[in-house]
Amino acid sequence: MPSTPQLPLQRVPAHKVGIIGLGAMGMAMAHNLSRQGYVLAVNDIRPEAQDEAQAAGMVVCESPRAVALLAAVILLVVVNASQINEVLFGEGDKPALVGAGLSGKTVVICSTIAPQDTIAIAQKLAQHGVACIDAPISGGPARALAGTMSMMLAGDPSLLASLEPLFNDLADKRFHISADIGDGAKAKLVNNLLAGINLVAGAEALALGLNLGLDAQKIFKLIEASSGASWIFQDRMARALKDDFAPRAATNILTKDVGLATAMAASIGSPTPLGEAALAHFKETLAMGWGDLDDAAVLKTYLAQSKRHKPAP
Amino acid sequence: MPSTPQLPLQRVPAHKVGIIGLGAMGMAMAHNLSRQGYVLAVNDIRPEAQDEAQAAGMVVCESPRAVALLAAVILLVVVNASQINEVLFGEGDKPALVGAGLSGKTVVICSTIAPQDTIAIAQKLAQHGVACIDAPISGGPARALAGTMSMMLAGDPSLLASLEPLFNDLADKRFHISADIGDGAKAKLVNNLLAGINLVAGAEALALGLNLGLDAQKIFKLIEASSGASWIFQDRMARALKDDFAPRAATNILTKDVGLATAMAASIGSPTPLGEAALAHFKETLAMGWGDLDDAAVLKTYLAQSKRHKPAP
Repeated sequence: MPSTPQLPLQRVPAHKVGIIGLGAMGMAMAHNLSRQGYVLAVNDIRPEAQDEAQAAGMVVCESPRAVALLAAVILLVVVNASQINEVLFGEGDKPALVGAGLSGKTVVICSTIAPQDTIAIAQKLAQHGVACIDAPISGGPARALAGTMSMMLAGDPSLLASLEPLFNDLADKRFHISADIGDGAKAKLVNNLLAGINLVAGAEALALGLNLGLDAQKIFKLIEASSGASWIFQDRMARALKDDFAPRAATNILTKDVGLATAMAASIGSPTPLGEAALAHFKETLAMGWGDLDDAAVLKTYLAQSKRHKPAP
Repeated sequence: MPSTPQLPLQRVPAHKVGIIGLGAMGMAMAHNLSRQGYVLAVNDIRPEAQDEAQAAGMVVCESPRAVALLAAVILLVVVNASQINEVLFGEGDKPALVGAGLSGKTVVICSTIAPQDTIAIAQKLAQHGVACIDAPISGGPARALAGTMSMMLAGDPSLLASLEPLFNDLADKRFHISADIGDGAKAKLVNNLLAGINLVAGAEALALGLNLGLDAQKIFKLIEASSGASWIFQDRMARALKDDFAPRAATNILTKDVGLATAMAASIGSPTPLGEAALAHFKETLAMGWGDLDDAAVLKTYLAQSKRHKPAP
């Protein structure tokens, strides 16, 4: 027997919204909208995600296409471009989302993917009469759940304007980048490239302080209040110093983003020597088997690589 | 005829304080203490600095030794370890600061130098009966003038306690690192390594955004409010986007600090791949002839290196 909704529907939803991909971010966004009274049609390949959605009173659909038939706006929050293509256009025996009866509907790409993939997907959607918004998100599951995450938005201005109430309910901080599909993805990758470098740099400096025998908390507080301060240093190294590597943001994710960013940069001849050095360190962290840990684990890699932390011969 | 002091002496000074080295930071610190009523004995090799100090009512001395004979506490704010050694221990026909009559006095090293140099200098000073405090400073001339800069402090705790009123007048933010001379220098270099990497990283990401054709102000505001945010990105890239490279902090300085930090790290086997990549970019910026510009100039180097910014063939 299905559970009843955990919260009453407090208002008439502005849109019938679909969400495909109920990972950490997608599920948090779904709970946030559901709590605000949206009628949500959702789909995920994992039964446990479907169960959680059903328990929260969402309309769980057996396929992405079923979501699209029910909803006017479909948010894609899957992991990468290959999953998006599979969901939208089908693969093997999996049915495509696109098809008859979807004309005038809008797909919103929230996943972080390469801008050329966003552009190609939007073009294919247009051939099926489906509109597309390029809307990568940022901020982590806690902020997604609170509706205080960030969204970078690119696409047709009048379509964006019509979706503004929904985006406002999803994300406190909205950055309108341009009218060109792909510019949202570009902006997201520029930011995440920098976040990735700042994270690895923070770990590099903190590991140096530890290797010098300095007090970890003193160095942390000094940097936090000084010219070396960064948002991601403060956020991640606070966890790392508590030896807390439970994944709020898994190393795999930022590794992927920094890889996408450096590849995008290389394709236009924009040099990223620090991005490449950071990517190498992320890959070393994956090689240690820490891809599913919180990305604060990049500190562990530095300590493992440091002479004084090696076992005595 | 010497100028009269520009500000009245408002209180009896806690210490007779000397300052050697009236560059941007030393002069700002001197004005700050002078305004608070300190009787200052000062020295600089540049006549224009001596003139400015005299006009502000400071006691201008003809040599570092004369400063040391007048003052109980001598702040060294010269550029590097070689200048400190020259000032303290003499070179060629230049007289040494140390010598008879200085027993019980204290030298405070405010310059950013290698920790092994700080340790060696303190040991030589001790042989002459002169105490030493390791006290690198941070924050730039404007904050030095306002007394709101940062100081990293290491040395004998009772000596530090006795100097606390002076340090409080110099620096709002004081970080007591440890009782070990050299740990102040280590902490400063750890922070400045990170500041240097974050700066170059910020320029790398912003240059990528510009090369992608994104709006500079939108990218700046997005990063400022997102996971790529850092103190130095916000401070320096705001200037760079106004094409303002007037040096508040010359590229030469942070280049030197990052070089000292990576050398220190290499000496103990603590890996700094991002530090080395940032140092290479700083050196490329110096090779462009921009060492005396504000270190925001690292952005100019990225743009000069980018394909789309090269003149058409």
